[in-house]
Amino acid sequence: MEKGTTEEKIQAAVNAIEKRGYTARPIPGGDRVSIGILHNKGSVDAAHFLGLDGVKEVIPVTKPYKLVSREFQQENTHVKVGDAVFGNGSLPVIAGPCAVESEKQVMSIAKSVKDAGAKIFRGGAFKPRTSPYSFQGLGKQGLKLLAKVREETGLPVVTEVMDVENFDVVEEYADIVQIGTRNMQNFSLLRRAGKSYRPVILKRGMSAMLQEWLMAAEYIMEEGNNNVILCERGVRTFVRHSRNTLDLSVVPAAKKESHLPIIVDPSHAAGVRDQVVALSYASAALGADGVMIEVHNNPDEALSDGAQSLYPDQFFDLMKKMNAIHAIVGEK
Amino acid sequence: MEKGTTEEKIQAAVNAIEKRGYTARPIPGGDRVSIGILHNKGSVDAAHFLGLDGVKEVIPVTKPYKLVSREFQQENTHVKVGDAVFGNGSLPVIAGPCAVESEKQVMSIAKSVKDAGAKIFRGGAFKPRTSPYSFQGLGKQGLKLLAKVREETGLPVVTEVMDVENFDVVEEYADIVQIGTRNMQNFSLLRRAGKSYRPVILKRGMSAMLQEWLMAAEYIMEEGNNNVILCERGVRTFVRHSRNTLDLSVVPAAKKESHLPIIVDPSHAAGVRDQVVALSYASAALGADGVMIEVHNNPDEALSDGAQSLYPDQFFDLMKKMNAIHAIVGEK
Amino acid sequence: MEKGTTEEKIQAAVNAIEKRGYTARPIPGGDRVSIGILHNKGSVDAAHFLGLDGVKEVIPVTKPYKLVSREFQQENTHVKVGDAVFGNGSLPVIAGPCAVESEKQVMSIAKSVKDAGAKIFRGGAFKPRTSPYSFQGLGKQGLKLLAKVREETGLPVVTEVMDVENFDVVEEYADIVQIGTRNMQNFSLLRRAGKSYRPVILKRGMSAMLQEWLMAAEYIMEEGNNNVILCERGVRTFVRHSRNTLDLSVVPAAKKESHLPIIVDPSHAAGVRDQVVALSYASAALGADGVMIEVHNNPDEALSDGAQSLYPDQFFDLMKKMNAIHAIVGEK
Amino acid sequence: MEKGTTEEKIQAAVNAIEKRGYTARPIPGGDRVSIGILHNKGSVDAAHFLGLDGVKEVIPVTKPYKLVSREFQQENTHVKVGDAVFGNGSLPVIAGPCAVESEKQVMSIAKSVKDAGAKIFRGGAFKPRTSPYSFQGLGKQGLKLLAKVREETGLPVVTEVMDVENFDVVEEYADIVQIGTRNMQNFSLLRRAGKSYRPVILKRGMSAMLQEWLMAAEYIMEEGNNNVILCERGVRTFVRHSRNTLDLSVVPAAKKESHLPIIVDPSHAAGVRDQVVALSYASAALGADGVMIEVHNNPDEALSDGAQSLYPDQFFDLMKKMNAIHAIVGEK
Repeated sequence: MEKGTTEEKIQAAVNAIEKRGYTARPIPGGDRVSIGILHNKGSVDAAHFLGLDGVKEVIPVTKPYKLVSREFQQENTHVKVGDAVFGNGSLPVIAGPCAVESEKQVMSIAKSVKDAGAKIFRGGAFKPRTSPYSFQGLGKQGLKLLAKVREETGLPVVTEVMDVENFDVVEEYADIVQIGTRNMQNFSLLRRAGKSYRPVILKRGMSAMLQEWLMAAEYIMEEGNNNVILCERGVRTFVRHSRNTLDLSVVPAAKKESHLPIIVDPSHAAGVRDQVVALSYASAALGADGVMIEVHNNPDEALSDGAQSLYPDQFFDLMKKMNAIHAIVGEK
Repeated sequence: MEKGTTEEKIQAAVNAIEKRGYTARPIPGGDRVSIGILHNKGSVDAAHFLGLDGVKEVIPVTKPYKLVSREFQQENTHVKVGDAVFGNGSLPVIAGPCAVESEKQVMSIAKSVKDAGAKIFRGGAFKPRTSPYSFQGLGKQGLKLLAKVREETGLPVVTEVMDVENFDVVEEYADIVQIGTRNMQNFSLLRRAGKSYRPVILKRGMSAMLQEWLMAAEYIMEEGNNNVILCERGVRTFVRHSRNTLDLSVVPAAKKESHLPIIVDPSHAAGVRDQVVALSYASAALGADGVMIEVHNNPDEALSDGAQSLYPDQFFDLMKKMNAIHAIVGEK
Repeated sequence: MEKGTTEEKIQAAVNAIEKRGYTARPIPGGDRVSIGILHNKGSVDAAHFLGLDGVKEVIPVTKPYKLVSREFQQENTHVKVGDAVFGNGSLPVIAGPCAVESEKQVMSIAKSVKDAGAKIFRGGAFKPRTSPYSFQGLGKQGLKLLAKVREETGLPVVTEVMDVENFDVVEEYADIVQIGTRNMQNFSLLRRAGKSYRPVILKRGMSAMLQEWLMAAEYIMEEGNNNVILCERGVRTFVRHSRNTLDLSVVPAAKKESHLPIIVDPSHAAGVRDQVVALSYASAALGADGVMIEVHNNPDEALSDGAQSLYPDQFFDLMKKMNAIHAIVGEK
Repeated sequence: MEKGTTEEKIQAAVNAIEKRGYTARPIPGGDRVSIGILHNKGSVDAAHFLGLDGVKEVIPVTKPYKLVSREFQQENTHVKVGDAVFGNGSLPVIAGPCAVESEKQVMSIAKSVKDAGAKIFRGGAFKPRTSPYSFQGLGKQGLKLLAKVREETGLPVVTEVMDVENFDVVEEYADIVQIGTRNMQNFSLLRRAGKSYRPVILKRGMSAMLQEWLMAAEYIMEEGNNNVILCERGVRTFVRHSRNTLDLSVVPAAKKESHLPIIVDPSHAAGVRDQVVALSYASAALGADGVMIEVHNNPDEALSDGAQSLYPDQFFDLMKKMNAIHAIVGEK
């Protein structure tokens, strides 16, 4: 649509699209509103809509994904949560423990990471674990502890949702809902996330192609939720010196294909502390839209993933350098 | 337990285990009953149970998985569905289209595959699709068509369940419930399947290690469902001449680790018809406990995965040769 | 060329091609001779050659490889060595130890595998080893022991050549020269193999695409050696239950693209004896043009790769079943 | 050995080691000389050597590799070439075209990259190409053009050697000899490189484990050449948005295991210009010991790999930012 088009004209365009049997999905960008035409079979005749008031142009999307594509929306999507903005060129950092373990633990870590400059607190309440006999998280009690963290520190919180059944309660407590690696193609969960009023972090599947990942994001956007943040967290390869192989080239590749922000989680990829530090610097240098890092006040006794969690002091130093690096690369 | 131990003695052993705060899970094998001790922290003192009536021995399980392990139960699990038995050295074949499309389609294919010797009919009613804009299956209507197939042909049917929400209805109509590749680590779904009265086919995740796959099966068994059939369907590699790389070495490897039956689905792995034929022969020769093959009466117009579906005549010929191969290798 | 074209007419066509600045490479097939036109820049004008005596048709090759392509030569290439023919629908088996260790060892194994029906003896004299401190093979002395095996048993022998420097001596002693996985893209070695009067087994690289592998074969054929046998031996993936992942789908895929025979080496792929047995049956069922299997008279004391070597009795039984399987599948 | 031990004492220790049938390999570190004991079978009795004059301690190496291991030599190896030092915490950059094409081309590029701050010039004279029909490089003429570049600009040059036959001539013209990805386990070539008086860049194989790569470096060091520089250039994975997947976590992992310097080549990994830029920043931030980047004066007409070559202006800007990033991370 033209810049500054009125709500009425947008609604008129939506009506015109839907009268022809398509679905219309208006997406506000920085300067202008785009309207996605979905559920067409075959191509759409541009002539139907070009004459409408306020319509600037009709762009056919040649990719298998539509709403997530840069073709459809050229400007970056900005996802705002508390003080943080993902996608505007800044480098918000999400930090916290792998799992919420106790009030004392989360409060201690939250204060450390806030002091160091983190903008969002992370912590798992429902934990996806390979073994049914491993610690599965504190569940709703964990969510309540996260809410306390937010109250006391002012930091928004992000936590993972593992199924549709618990979506309502996670959505109630969390500021950002995370969909984990193993659920990247859990389509029922994606659809539910698409109906959420919360921003969603969508982690890349263990062996997902870029196109499959963007398609998973399309499932969310197709249901009406435009606040999707992609998160690279390492893929499975033959390599054995790290838990997974962090695929940093996916960051510029995703930015070329899509307007969605993309952040990096080096902690799960590496699985070892000293690699996490090096890869965090690399992520900052790369132009990622954010970094998510595990920090623990007592990594050696953490209930999960201790070996990859940074010590608070280490994180403090890391933040200083990451910000300095970002200042150099960000100047475009 | 000893061979021929009475129900009372088994119950007494179960009580003794639970009194110590553990979970007891009795699993009937061919000749004898094993009782799994779960949810112990640290090792279990064998002395507590060795003196009990009917207890033959106490075997510590050294693997991260317990109930699924060959250590815990040495005899093969037999899963019986209609005329088919998975795990007893026979080679039951599951055949049918990728997706249920219409009554005419499924009836035509079901008759063909039954004539050729297939023991179970497959067909997708709920389809997991990479794109939200692809055909998503007929849903409940598809399940009803599968029920009609069973009525008319006597063949049991297997179909995929994609989420907990639809589990009840799938369980009602299907004789075997399938959990797909993308959901191998959807732990909520696995737990629900563990409470089902139906056998479960658990497909291997796109990049799952053998141990992760067995752990996923453990989630199902831990909830009480012992009728789990593993299904290899190809893993993601750098290879481009086939859709995925069928990992046939996982069949002997899984049999060494676990007592569960394991079948092979060459159709999804290959993605191309002539590879499917060759890999089906290979699967029969390998000692798999079954094969699952896509057959379509009109592959060129199939709504999904047509290129990998066999023509009915091709399948008829394939079955003859697969059975002949199995007769050679089976004679142990 | 037409069937039964005379040598003179072929030579005339060759001259006509070379006069235009191209390279002509005549390749005898089953019924007719094809002439490859190489080193053209841009497309070749068919009109130049269509009128020549004996020329049947001019087929443009659309693949990046030419001489190896099925487009260029539709009939299978037959590579004959002793009693064995690779590519004519039979299933010749190559067997022997990983490394030549002593006269007693090779004689004992050679007699066993000959009795079991193997057609060719294998044994490494020059061994490519990951570590410089591992046993590197007996070198020329090993070649002499292989020659003794041939004298005593009548079996042709195959052994690996690791570099151009030792090519002459390997070529002198071996009936088939093998180029190993790590050297699949050692282009100098490929060119030397292309000038050899011996057939060449070209193993697939650890992570080679089918197209790269065929291109490596093209290097050999481009120099004039048409007797190339492809050998699948497993590729590197994330999998840990076997040493490499045997990619059986590459067999039908290669046969579609190329007229060259393709055999399978399950021993190096699996790395574990019981997987080798299962995968050998699978290879026979698949339609491979041969199988290469490691057998050792005393696997537990083998100087390399003992765990994957079969016992002679095991191999005897395996051969019976492989032949029975092949009899079923071969009847096309 | 103790700091400041005399040549005589070192020679005496070497003699004592060799008298017992071992090979002794003295390696000068920053402050002290270490002597590797090679070709022992079983463990070495430290008592034999502890009493010798100048011997400080005897450290058993528990890794499969010895000379390359950090266990054996704790201090970083410094490889000096012209003004550049690899391994001392600086970030020398190697830049130039994929292939040497003409005098005009290399001179133009060499001047640009020197102005931008590159310390070493790269250019391929012998090119390993997947197809025998692709441009194979200018060969010896290319080497002469590289020598001219050195004369005119003062920049040392690095170029690839593909085989033992051409090693002498490459060694004569090049300041650093590069062993390419496809030859990482060409053991004859590694041994020849071990006898060279030139430093060697050893690129990681397409699917090499860290341990295999270090073992390949061990082949070179075992022959007496200590000036080995490792180079990560991307590994083969299922990913399709980049040519290979740059495995940056191997940099901290290699530094932990080995004292050898390790550099990164983002150009070959990415295959696309905008990814090369992002990954170069990431490499600088990561703590790599150098970066190797392709630059071309006219990428669109390059004879090979044009799409991944940077424009000279782009490279100029890149260098400024890489140096600024390195200044932040380097301050340890």
